Amino acid sequence: MKALVLFSGGLDSTTCLALAIDKYGAENVLALSISYGQKHTKEIEAAKAVAAYYGVKLQTLDLAAIFADSDCSLLKGSTEEIPKESYAEQLTKTDGKPVSTYVPFRNGLFLSSAASVALSHGCEVIYYGAHADDAAGNAYPDCSVDFNDAMHDAIYIGSGQQLQVVAPFVECNKADVVAMGLRLHAPYHLTWSCYEGGDKPCGLCGTCRDRAAAFAANGITDPAIN
Amino acid sequence: MKALVLFSGGLDSTTCLALAIDKYGAENVLALSISYGQKHTKEIEAAKAVAAYYGVKLQTLDLAAIFADSDCSLLKGSTEEIPKESYAEQLTKTDGKPVSTYVPFRNGLFLSSAASVALSHGCEVIYYGAHADDAAGNAYPDCSVDFNDAMHDAIYIGSGQQLQVVAPFVECNKADVVAMGLRLHAPYHLTWSCYEGGDKPCGLCGTCRDRAAAFAANGITDPAIN
Repeated sequence: MKALVLFSGGLDSTTCLALAIDKYGAENVLALSISYGQKHTKEIEAAKAVAAYYGVKLQTLDLAAIFADSDCSLLKGSTEEIPKESYAEQLTKTDGKPVSTYVPFRNGLFLSSAASVALSHGCEVIYYGAHADDAAGNAYPDCSVDFNDAMHDAIYIGSGQQLQVVAPFVECNKADVVAMGLRLHAPYHLTWSCYEGGDKPCGLCGTCRDRAAAFAANGITDPAIN
Repeated sequence: MKALVLFSGGLDSTTCLALAIDKYGAENVLALSISYGQKHTKEIEAAKAVAAYYGVKLQTLDLAAIFADSDCSLLKGSTEEIPKESYAEQLTKTDGKPVSTYVPFRNGLFLSSAASVALSHGCEVIYYGAHADDAAGNAYPDCSVDFNDAMHDAIYIGSGQQLQVVAPFVECNKADVVAMGLRLHAPYHLTWSCYEGGDKPCGLCGTCRDRAAAFAANGITDPAIN
């Protein structure tokens, strides 16, 4: 294996996977999907479908125990409702703190787990799909350029210079991500982004709104909605 | 809770725990012990004994699944022998790479897991016991000052400036750590460092050798050996 892709089955990480496969070939790419106690399993099902589409090896990990005491609204154990507003609207009420769907240090934990797995498989690089829209206004501080730079350094140094982190979209918005995925013919029809676990995406949560806007900016309808 | 201490039940992390309790009080300290698939459970037993001695809350996590494909010699699944040499001797044969007891990105993973748990409990700081002897010659690159600085930044930024990392011994050697622990009356008689899981420490592995030298430098016999 050459590259490990942190892969949720959503739009951003599917684009990341498409990029890594384009560069390294499917046989050299390992996809890693991590459960963290979220309220539904739609993302993992989507991840399996996309991995099968590409013929890449998919490894899964369950790290829900780490978040057992968190009250993040995405998690099964939480009684908090998932907000039906855009991130910008939510941020007017958080007093500078992350939004309620911020899972504590999730991206740091995922990247670190990815580093341990990647080193065990001889990978040289980890890809992940953080982008600028999620980092805006400190909604998800673990998607920012500064966070990414620090995690890259930690993983490069802490692995004895064996492993690098690539976040190809860290300075792009979600519309740019979709534009790149469309060029690569990413199988967006198989992906799942919605925070709710309904039969169809709710269309109202922060990530549904962002996703719809990104497709609209590219002049097409979301192929996962029919 | 104010502080989370990454706590293995060994000498360095017991000293770290003693420091954190001295500063914050036992009632404000959460100790976190992480299993990672090591060949024995002596460390976890020691961690429980030390936590009980101090009356601090001990949380445990099992992250062995993350290392399922690693061939690190500390792990159950590995057929490699744990070297019976000092780190300096081992490093003459590793061609600049970490020693065979380096668990891939373990400290990064442990700190990230600690960050997720700490944020769930409202802690402001994570303590961990990395020191300069372990970092020397790239034996354990995830114990170095540069690694620690990068992880601190990643956790501080990625938590939305809610959480800091303190590595009080990162520029000390193990003899300095023991000196500090002796001043704090750390219960070293309850700790376990040896990589092997025998009834008594083997006295030959890298960590046994380092431990014995650190006590000798302080002019005393290891209180865990009788």
